[in-house]
Amino acid sequence: MSYENILGTIDFMESLRGKKATFLLALSNSKTYEIKGITQAGIPGFIHLTPTLDSEFVSLGEVRSLDGVAETPKGVPTPALITRAVHELKPFSKIELLDLGLEVKPKISHLSIYNFDLKPSSSIKNGSDINALDVFQKGLEFGKNYKSTDDYIILGESVPSGTTTANALVKALGYEVEGMFSSSFKNNPKDIKQEVIKSSLEAVRENDDIFTIIGKVADNMLIFNAGFLLGANANQTKIVLAGGTQMAAVLLLVNSIVKNMNGVYDSSNTALCTTSWVSKDENSNIKALLEQLDFKTDAYFATFDFELSSHPALKLYDQGEAKEGVGAGAALIYALINGLRKEDIIKKVESYLGV
Amino acid sequence: MSYENILGTIDFMESLRGKKATFLLALSNSKTYEIKGITQAGIPGFIHLTPTLDSEFVSLGEVRSLDGVAETPKGVPTPALITRAVHELKPFSKIELLDLGLEVKPKISHLSIYNFDLKPSSSIKNGSDINALDVFQKGLEFGKNYKSTDDYIILGESVPSGTTTANALVKALGYEVEGMFSSSFKNNPKDIKQEVIKSSLEAVRENDDIFTIIGKVADNMLIFNAGFLLGANANQTKIVLAGGTQMAAVLLLVNSIVKNMNGVYDSSNTALCTTSWVSKDENSNIKALLEQLDFKTDAYFATFDFELSSHPALKLYDQGEAKEGVGAGAALIYALINGLRKEDIIKKVESYLGV
Repeated sequence: MSYENILGTIDFMESLRGKKATFLLALSNSKTYEIKGITQAGIPGFIHLTPTLDSEFVSLGEVRSLDGVAETPKGVPTPALITRAVHELKPFSKIELLDLGLEVKPKISHLSIYNFDLKPSSSIKNGSDINALDVFQKGLEFGKNYKSTDDYIILGESVPSGTTTANALVKALGYEVEGMFSSSFKNNPKDIKQEVIKSSLEAVRENDDIFTIIGKVADNMLIFNAGFLLGANANQTKIVLAGGTQMAAVLLLVNSIVKNMNGVYDSSNTALCTTSWVSKDENSNIKALLEQLDFKTDAYFATFDFELSSHPALKLYDQGEAKEGVGAGAALIYALINGLRKEDIIKKVESYLGV
Repeated sequence: MSYENILGTIDFMESLRGKKATFLLALSNSKTYEIKGITQAGIPGFIHLTPTLDSEFVSLGEVRSLDGVAETPKGVPTPALITRAVHELKPFSKIELLDLGLEVKPKISHLSIYNFDLKPSSSIKNGSDINALDVFQKGLEFGKNYKSTDDYIILGESVPSGTTTANALVKALGYEVEGMFSSSFKNNPKDIKQEVIKSSLEAVRENDDIFTIIGKVADNMLIFNAGFLLGANANQTKIVLAGGTQMAAVLLLVNSIVKNMNGVYDSSNTALCTTSWVSKDENSNIKALLEQLDFKTDAYFATFDFELSSHPALKLYDQGEAKEGVGAGAALIYALINGLRKEDIIKKVESYLGV
């Protein structure tokens, strides 16, 4: 099988078998990454470049804003390698980039990069200081007006320290979060994270309305994507949220906003896809996050790992390092429901590592 | 990698990864082919049939206007085999034929063949006697009105003795040509060619305007395609010129016409794709031709050869016989950026040769 359910049924995903997909990549920087030890998504000293480099590699197969692909300290390469391998073997109909506040713009021409005049957000430790209503409305408008010529949209992300901001946001919205949030570290640096999250929540006041809360503890990607989902949903656009706990946080944010407006979210055109590494992670629990939604959700993970590879850097994925990002899980499911074989994907990923 | 740059960057081609393409094949006869030893693009005695047979084979997988595929004397089959193999493995959205003065019409129904009331042009040796303005305007109109339903157009050609006419044209326009023009011969018959070209240029008068010059030394394909490019460019239609030095000549002609009209050509929607055999040919220099353009150009060659084949006829390609034509280079890049594997293309080509 190509994938398994985390929640829901296989029907949504089966309806997309063989269908065409647009790949949208939401890119953002949050200064939260500057907190020492909070993330390993990138090259030490250049972590702010991670979304820029990821977008270059997925779009072009090369990085331009720095030599060498973004790697974590132990040499685990970015999941962008997986998404790119899929794009080379079974291309998405198109890749488009959403600049939701990048420190460094990708050096790419001929591909659409949507600009929303957003700046990198501040560290949540001191309040992320986002004009949440503005970011949300930009997402909503974009979602309403986005005309997809494909059967569905895969919406991925690259935001260093994004699991920390997602964790903070979900907690601030009042959901259960204990033991539920993933990290790009195998040895999840919980203490530092919990400290930062605790500190960020201290800024939230009892009488804060929902957008004030969000503006203090989130990142632009989370807020924009919640708006995008609601906007696109009005057109019955099918959207696959491509990610792990961060995309679960987007759904929980949609849930809270809709509840706050006494609305109902029709989730029949929405699903979440992630990797097996996220789904099987013992330090997080994406299922428990999604079960807190008031609407039904179809969520899946790709039945893919690097067991067939002998490359040490790729073996680390199977050991729990670098679990998701840049839409890798959804890209894998897209590949597998379009007839690609695991072996070929692995070979292509290995080819980037000089095997 | 699927391709490499001759000039420019990979971005244009990466933006077409996974996208749908229309394949347009521009077909023309110039009596220049009658000069003994000037071309080996076809079967001796039937070289005038080459574009007809090529178009039948690409469109249908069989030739109807003569038994057997067009071959050169040493048994090198036409590059139409490559383009057809690609079309069978990863079909173009559609193939359409442009009859720009064929001696024999292709025997094809159900496929579009555009007719422009053009006759085969005379040998350039005595002045090709083309109403260049008429041919150019037909190309311009067609380009303006051509509504592509695909993401881009691949524009290929089949014109026996076409490198000779291209060489003459580019020289007549005042560009450097020394050592830059390819030929379908491995042992490029330079002396005969140079004689013909010299003789054709003697017809050009100092006060001739640009269309008068073109009318004396070109072929219909070169002139029509220059018009087509300019017409389609007004609609921002993305066009891949599929060919080697002949298509470089089309670009140089566009360059001269635009300069002559004190205009500027926006080349952001235009690229040239060819084969590795052209790019690596020691008897020609496509890069040096393209570097004479006043506009930026993205040009690519397919990283494809027949090293993996043991068929003697195909090995000859790698030895420099039959280098390009019928859009083979662009078809290969199209195939490779749509996930096809070299091995499968080679097998398919071999299947036409009874391996």
